[in-house]
Amino acid sequence: MANQAAISLQAICYSRGSLSLLDQRKLPQETVYLEIHTAADGWSAIREMVVRGAPAIAISAALSLAVEVSNSDFKGTAVDAASFLVERLGYLESSRPTAVNLSEATVKLQNIVKKVAETTSNPEVVFQAYLEAAEIMLTDDVAANKSIGCHGAAIIASGLQTKQLSVLTHCNTGSLATAGYGTALGVIRALHSGGQLERAYCTETRPFNQGSRLTAYELVHDKIPATLIADSSAAALMKAGRVNAIVVGADRIAANGDTANKIGTYSLAVAASHHGIPFYVAAPLTSIDGSMASGEEIVIEERSPNELLFSHGGLGERVAASGIDVWNPAFDVTPSNLITAIITEKGVITRNVEGFFAITEFMERTA
Amino acid sequence: MANQAAISLQAICYSRGSLSLLDQRKLPQETVYLEIHTAADGWSAIREMVVRGAPAIAISAALSLAVEVSNSDFKGTAVDAASFLVERLGYLESSRPTAVNLSEATVKLQNIVKKVAETTSNPEVVFQAYLEAAEIMLTDDVAANKSIGCHGAAIIASGLQTKQLSVLTHCNTGSLATAGYGTALGVIRALHSGGQLERAYCTETRPFNQGSRLTAYELVHDKIPATLIADSSAAALMKAGRVNAIVVGADRIAANGDTANKIGTYSLAVAASHHGIPFYVAAPLTSIDGSMASGEEIVIEERSPNELLFSHGGLGERVAASGIDVWNPAFDVTPSNLITAIITEKGVITRNVEGFFAITEFMERTA
Repeated sequence: MANQAAISLQAICYSRGSLSLLDQRKLPQETVYLEIHTAADGWSAIREMVVRGAPAIAISAALSLAVEVSNSDFKGTAVDAASFLVERLGYLESSRPTAVNLSEATVKLQNIVKKVAETTSNPEVVFQAYLEAAEIMLTDDVAANKSIGCHGAAIIASGLQTKQLSVLTHCNTGSLATAGYGTALGVIRALHSGGQLERAYCTETRPFNQGSRLTAYELVHDKIPATLIADSSAAALMKAGRVNAIVVGADRIAANGDTANKIGTYSLAVAASHHGIPFYVAAPLTSIDGSMASGEEIVIEERSPNELLFSHGGLGERVAASGIDVWNPAFDVTPSNLITAIITEKGVITRNVEGFFAITEFMERTA
Repeated sequence: MANQAAISLQAICYSRGSLSLLDQRKLPQETVYLEIHTAADGWSAIREMVVRGAPAIAISAALSLAVEVSNSDFKGTAVDAASFLVERLGYLESSRPTAVNLSEATVKLQNIVKKVAETTSNPEVVFQAYLEAAEIMLTDDVAANKSIGCHGAAIIASGLQTKQLSVLTHCNTGSLATAGYGTALGVIRALHSGGQLERAYCTETRPFNQGSRLTAYELVHDKIPATLIADSSAAALMKAGRVNAIVVGADRIAANGDTANKIGTYSLAVAASHHGIPFYVAAPLTSIDGSMASGEEIVIEERSPNELLFSHGGLGERVAASGIDVWNPAFDVTPSNLITAIITEKGVITRNVEGFFAITEFMERTA
């Protein structure tokens, strides 16, 4: 982990007994880490948006309790230890009630400690099982992202004649949204560390500016040659021949490959298709929702008009005329026919002979 | 003019002896008009960005001197009167040295008054000639825009089956950029006044937000049903079937129809083509530059990185990470093959049997 910290940004810095979180509220102006000693510290950090991004929230919650457990001197039985952990996990879950990853993680961890408490009378065994389960969440997510990066760099570089290539990405899919390294931004990191990246381009990602605030910050931190553009200039950049490939993340991938992702993704996919530029989606297999046959079933959240009416994502001064209506969808759906391939931690999903992504077969094969 | 003021925003309010300019620096928060009594007032208003937009600047300069002349009690000969006007016009030209329209207008007006002074000894005749020449600039530009609106509404409505239609536009091409009514926004005004407009959509137009600050303000002022969107959501809006046509302005049109316009125009044209939505350019014939064979000859200005790095077009707080490179082109070029038709004050330029815009022939025919 020390070696990784030297090359790529870490928003969650953990070793047993110690946790600090990069305070994302202060980015990009200030780089400040907050020390987390207890589950209560973790709860506040999540509630107050020190940490954001679904995987990052779940892992931070679990690790905040791990730190409290490591440093406490518990008196009681194994059953008492399990009860304590179950109660604290329920409390952590309440920090962001709508976060599905957080809820899934706390339920999973609660089940683990309850099960272990049935087999031992030693509270230390229960705590040890919790620590290991919480810590593996962190290492598993980083490992999955590094694997995505590796597979992504290989397929992107393989299809191109040039020694170095330039890649455009959208929104933030990096260390600030995951346990570390990132998905689409992990692919860019992998290309860079392999000496194959000429330049990364990142969009502002209106209206919440995850690109200019967060992705640009990560790229500068990692000293990756990078250029920020307005979302609307991406097509002109492609026309100018300055983009060899596009790689984006995914919020949800339907069984046919249709992909819901941050608003603006579809516009990039249409422009990529027009210019004959390969368009990749990079996401862990957990982003695939086999229950949805196609993107038409994906419900798109509409967010507050204030994100367009006021600066700083709705918190700053008025920008737009009073009285104007606003359409502010959080996501859009890119149909699978505009996607070149889907990059996962288990390998790359490409089209079958009939031209479709055989996603279900891929998941069965790699399970 | 009184009737027009009741229905569509006027940024330049003029009657002989009186001029007031809408202070665009205060938009959209405040609607304040500044009274202009002299050429010196006009010079300051232009220099301090009270008024912007190439035609609007030239006309405001000419009218500020017209007001001074109307209200002054001049002693001197016709030659003295011409010398006074020539000197004042030279002074006004210095308010924005790089504005081509302003420079062309002042030279044209200087030539008029010099010529008249050769034929009369009465200074009042010289002043009268100046007043009429300055006033006709205002009425000509508004008349040209209304004609563009009329031709545009006719062609857009003719191609569609629905009774009412929704139109997307980009940047600001309205009363705030012209002498009044506007070009692309004039087409939307004409559709609305003809009962043919269901809804106008305007983009934010990053990075300088001319759409959210100015176009949204004009649409709200005129009570036109209108919705603001992020630039990046335009393609998703088209995919949702909510846009029947797109109409944009032009900074420069090459002889083959390739069109330079605000950055983001090309992205909209690519998405329109993908969805089979007609894409129109609306501009006066003066925007056509017959000296350029194609858009490849058009030089694209790159603007300050600060427009993306800081809020409020570069004047506000830092948004993006320190140290990130920026690509901030002011314009892009939309190739003519993505343009359905070009709407001018003399009629609509459509494709000939070979599929090309016969722009030179059109200009010769309508000259």
